Amino acid sequence: MTQTQPARGMRDILPAEMRRREYVIRIIRETYERYGFEPLETPAVENIETLTGKYGEEAGGLIFKILKRGEGESSGQADLALRYDLTVPLARVVAEYGERLPKFFKRYQIQPVYRAERPARGRFREFYQCDVDAIGSRSLIVEAELCAAASDALARLGFKNFTIRLNHRAVLTGILDAAGIAAELHAMALTAIDKLDKIGASGVQNELEARGIEGAAGSRLLGFFQDLNELRRAAEIVAGNAVFDENSTDDSTARVENIDNASPHVALNRAVLGRLVEFIGDHEAGARGCDELRSILDFAQSSGAGARLSLDPSLARGLSYYTGAIMEVSHPDLAGSLGGGGRYDNLIGMFSGRDVPACGFSLGLERIIVVMSEREMFPSEVERAGADVLVTIWDEAAMPDALALARLLRAGDIRADVYPEAGKVKNQLKYASARGVRFVTIAGPDERERGEVSLKDLRTGEQQTLARERIAEAIRTNLENSVA
Amino acid sequence: MTQTQPARGMRDILPAEMRRREYVIRIIRETYERYGFEPLETPAVENIETLTGKYGEEAGGLIFKILKRGEGESSGQADLALRYDLTVPLARVVAEYGERLPKFFKRYQIQPVYRAERPARGRFREFYQCDVDAIGSRSLIVEAELCAAASDALARLGFKNFTIRLNHRAVLTGILDAAGIAAELHAMALTAIDKLDKIGASGVQNELEARGIEGAAGSRLLGFFQDLNELRRAAEIVAGNAVFDENSTDDSTARVENIDNASPHVALNRAVLGRLVEFIGDHEAGARGCDELRSILDFAQSSGAGARLSLDPSLARGLSYYTGAIMEVSHPDLAGSLGGGGRYDNLIGMFSGRDVPACGFSLGLERIIVVMSEREMFPSEVERAGADVLVTIWDEAAMPDALALARLLRAGDIRADVYPEAGKVKNQLKYASARGVRFVTIAGPDERERGEVSLKDLRTGEQQTLARERIAEAIRTNLENSVA
Repeated sequence: MTQTQPARGMRDILPAEMRRREYVIRIIRETYERYGFEPLETPAVENIETLTGKYGEEAGGLIFKILKRGEGESSGQADLALRYDLTVPLARVVAEYGERLPKFFKRYQIQPVYRAERPARGRFREFYQCDVDAIGSRSLIVEAELCAAASDALARLGFKNFTIRLNHRAVLTGILDAAGIAAELHAMALTAIDKLDKIGASGVQNELEARGIEGAAGSRLLGFFQDLNELRRAAEIVAGNAVFDENSTDDSTARVENIDNASPHVALNRAVLGRLVEFIGDHEAGARGCDELRSILDFAQSSGAGARLSLDPSLARGLSYYTGAIMEVSHPDLAGSLGGGGRYDNLIGMFSGRDVPACGFSLGLERIIVVMSEREMFPSEVERAGADVLVTIWDEAAMPDALALARLLRAGDIRADVYPEAGKVKNQLKYASARGVRFVTIAGPDERERGEVSLKDLRTGEQQTLARERIAEAIRTNLENSVA
Repeated sequence: MTQTQPARGMRDILPAEMRRREYVIRIIRETYERYGFEPLETPAVENIETLTGKYGEEAGGLIFKILKRGEGESSGQADLALRYDLTVPLARVVAEYGERLPKFFKRYQIQPVYRAERPARGRFREFYQCDVDAIGSRSLIVEAELCAAASDALARLGFKNFTIRLNHRAVLTGILDAAGIAAELHAMALTAIDKLDKIGASGVQNELEARGIEGAAGSRLLGFFQDLNELRRAAEIVAGNAVFDENSTDDSTARVENIDNASPHVALNRAVLGRLVEFIGDHEAGARGCDELRSILDFAQSSGAGARLSLDPSLARGLSYYTGAIMEVSHPDLAGSLGGGGRYDNLIGMFSGRDVPACGFSLGLERIIVVMSEREMFPSEVERAGADVLVTIWDEAAMPDALALARLLRAGDIRADVYPEAGKVKNQLKYASARGVRFVTIAGPDERERGEVSLKDLRTGEQQTLARERIAEAIRTNLENSVA
């Protein structure tokens, strides 16, 4: 018996799941296009030199390598490799097509990437990334627009209570320097601070000490973040949690209106920024970072993301890659994030040697689909079966007539399937029902003679006999009514 | 300097080309869904055992193999490979999910496949296949529906004068047996006959002899196909070429109407079928094949493909794979085909060991895109730029206002880009113009104070000043008018 499962860590996407994926991708794509981002695709296969040395040692071991063909095959050498992310290919594209691309190149790219990770629940070796990046400008308008686009996409997918946490790479450095922590201990200190909610102040204190961070510096750092937490709690009490209320059933437009004018929310960001400026003092890069955060918050008020942004000086997102603002989408019910991004001004130039500013955002497509499925957030037209109606076959002689009816229905924009064989109509109805197809048509010899067809709604059991020409309209009306 | 071209034989798809691809894929997908076909995706990476031995020796050498990870890497062994087509993965899916799939599994799949062929003009190592298959029924309704779906998709893409050539594997065998050609020479004989239009009767006669086909048998075979050619020419004269007239500018509905009632066309198919029946005589499989062709032609009259089908006993499509009807889409202006398919009842069961009937059609997506681009068949909304309007920035102080305007436009369903930096407005207009963006908005301090914005149409040079709230509508009206 041959193995027929997909390769380890890979998935077959069957029709019901495909419809969900296509819906999510369509909404994201339409949203990004509305913000002036353009589609790009790159090959799944890259020259191996394009990828090697770009992801650090650990990740480098997760790249799928392709064996040379022909003579080279026996040598065991690899000359190609599978795409590991969408950022290195973007850098290659920017270097390759330089002048042929717009000066401000705004692209989105939704394609699978390949990583030889140990498969686990929710972790796959082939998974889609959904990246949007704006190349070529240092303007903070870019950050504000990216936050607005991502937030708009999530809102259109039906997500309500998400927050885009915002921080800045230079501000993080400023905080750690100001606390007096040596540069080589920055990453460790942040890892400890990140656990504040979980293990409490004394836990963090212990961890900071255990990692060799000098007591006074550790206390200054911890104190700063404890202060911020208190500030946040106070603000939440002031706001009465109304704005962020989990179980609110307001319609979303009204909610955005509410949030837009949510002065407690904006006031909290302002207060946090004040604390940052104060703590960082005259640390030059840090102070500049604070200015940038202020501009981003201001711009975001206009771009439409203001109500979603939450200034969070503890957000780290790994330190290596980013050079400016960093963002991450949180949802109160989720441990992980729905996406994130930031500014990375030194990466896109890796192939060209030129200095190319860039800022991007990546939505966690696979996670979004899982969450939306679990919470039944998909609209009914996505969850319905693969056809609106099954045209049944009364007997062999009725076949041409059934095909002609299906043709008529399709011309009327109905998704019509035809049962391919003559057989008991009862079995054909069972088949439609098992597939979740809502309507069936039945046309015996008498009906055919009168130019009529019986239309049965398998959901309600109702059956009506109509002129052939009226069937498409009847199905459409019923489908529309049940959506509304 | 690092190499920044895509890997050999692979392509980056830049935005303008992406929009064309997405349009073609959307139309095909929508059409297939209307026929009750459902989407499926399988991983780009398969276990190597899934693919080896499935494509014959020559093709087997074109499979990209993936090196084992970790310990295995140094051994040069491959355990995975890149998808070579969409049919073997479909067979794997049918075996794996068996009972969980509908009894009649109708799926379409549009994904890239990978072949290590020597790259050439129009031949790539990563290219999209676009397959539609109906699994589980021997009914000839399946053939008629597949032809209707493919033909409908091409018509909706704007193709007009294409023909679906139809033949049958058993009929081909019947013809060759009836002519008295030994089974082992069948393939050679067909290759020679295929050149009849190019090298003429005497050329074919020579080639048949050179390939060791006995003189009398060769003459019988050649005579049969010459007779058919004469029949076709006579029918074309009767039809006055009106129906198939290349330069007709009729609107397509009217044309379909015409073709539907095109008795010369239907009469020709009937006449060809008559000759086939006569020539094949009591060859059992061949006669059954003729009966099947008759049914397919009859059903296709009802399903909507009748007017496109042209019975062509010289169509071969390689002999190995198909077991019943075979189809291929021809266009008078194209040497190659736009797609093709047929019945292959012994393939889908390769993994399950069960007998699974199947019939499929594959549209040549890459070729369709090339042809449509060359002939400018894309609608104007596909060829337009990545944004409808560029919001310019008067000065630093105007940035929040520009972002708010963009937000307003997007809420009004307009694709709005924002120039990210303050600078000379003249340069911003140049940027919009270079990108092909049709509209720009300009708002100086006076206009902002009055709540107004100037909207400039870069195509006509016209400029009007409107209330901010009316800009989206004004752009929409202009875009719609220019489409009509």
